[in-house]
Amino acid sequence: MQQRRIILGIDPGLANTGWGVIERNGSKLSCVAYGCVSTGADRELAWRLGKIHQQITAVVQRFSPEAVGIETVWFGQNVSAAFATGQARGAALVACAQAGLSVGEFSPRQIKLSVVGTGSADKSQVQYMMKQLLGLDEAPRPDHAADALAAAVCYVTHEGSQSAGGAR
Amino acid sequence: MQQRRIILGIDPGLANTGWGVIERNGSKLSCVAYGCVSTGADRELAWRLGKIHQQITAVVQRFSPEAVGIETVWFGQNVSAAFATGQARGAALVACAQAGLSVGEFSPRQIKLSVVGTGSADKSQVQYMMKQLLGLDEAPRPDHAADALAAAVCYVTHEGSQSAGGAR
Repeated sequence: MQQRRIILGIDPGLANTGWGVIERNGSKLSCVAYGCVSTGADRELAWRLGKIHQQITAVVQRFSPEAVGIETVWFGQNVSAAFATGQARGAALVACAQAGLSVGEFSPRQIKLSVVGTGSADKSQVQYMMKQLLGLDEAPRPDHAADALAAAVCYVTHEGSQSAGGAR
Repeated sequence: MQQRRIILGIDPGLANTGWGVIERNGSKLSCVAYGCVSTGADRELAWRLGKIHQQITAVVQRFSPEAVGIETVWFGQNVSAAFATGQARGAALVACAQAGLSVGEFSPRQIKLSVVGTGSADKSQVQYMMKQLLGLDEAPRPDHAADALAAAVCYVTHEGSQSAGGAR
């Protein structure tokens, strides 16, 4: 197993795409950086998707992660939300594909189980646990950034246990 | 109004993304090129999205369209289809955004009305009308390519009548 690894996490959304970069050094996890790409609903769709792609590309170029954890979102019966988020996720994943990153996809339940210990945790619990697990001074905001960090932590947690149905 | 214009059409899909390029010269329409980006379900999602983005980028670079017509797909209650197609559409639209193309979004009904004269036309009718309208020797195949050409024709048809709810 490599000692130091840089992992990206993404929480895709058309209005807000959270991203977070963590470092694993042996068994220690730490936060490298996190943020959120916000695009206004008043802008054209292609512009919004272009911005998501551009900013995730910039994050990848700046921090050189070797892999990315990304949520497989569950929409219930909300077809239009699935379509909108799908487009944002496609824009973000193109950036990852261009950099040759390994991609691990995880359900919200898998991610929450990894970082909070229960699959039904709420957003504030995820934010709190990201602060604790990554030794941050405060809980990461917005929640999209915390969810992205959680996806990255989930990727690290699932390494070596891909039979859990997650990564790749 | 400009005399000669090059317009791209895209029919997005994760397994098959059709594309078609038409030229408008005064009132005459002709086909420049068409094709389909196919990605196997056995490949990783990010790879498939990266391929769609890469090939649509290549089409844009080769033919230098100034605008693109793209379908706003209707999925009924099929959330997983909406999510998959959304991702492919996002990957294709990033390529369009990077080239600064104007994007016109049209419903399947608008596109069929533009090219067949009825919103309930089937795929073979669209293929037949693309052959007729664009003066092709044979109907474009696969149907994804014909649908993409139809989206480009719809874009041209709607220019100057954007109150129809389509372009932009």
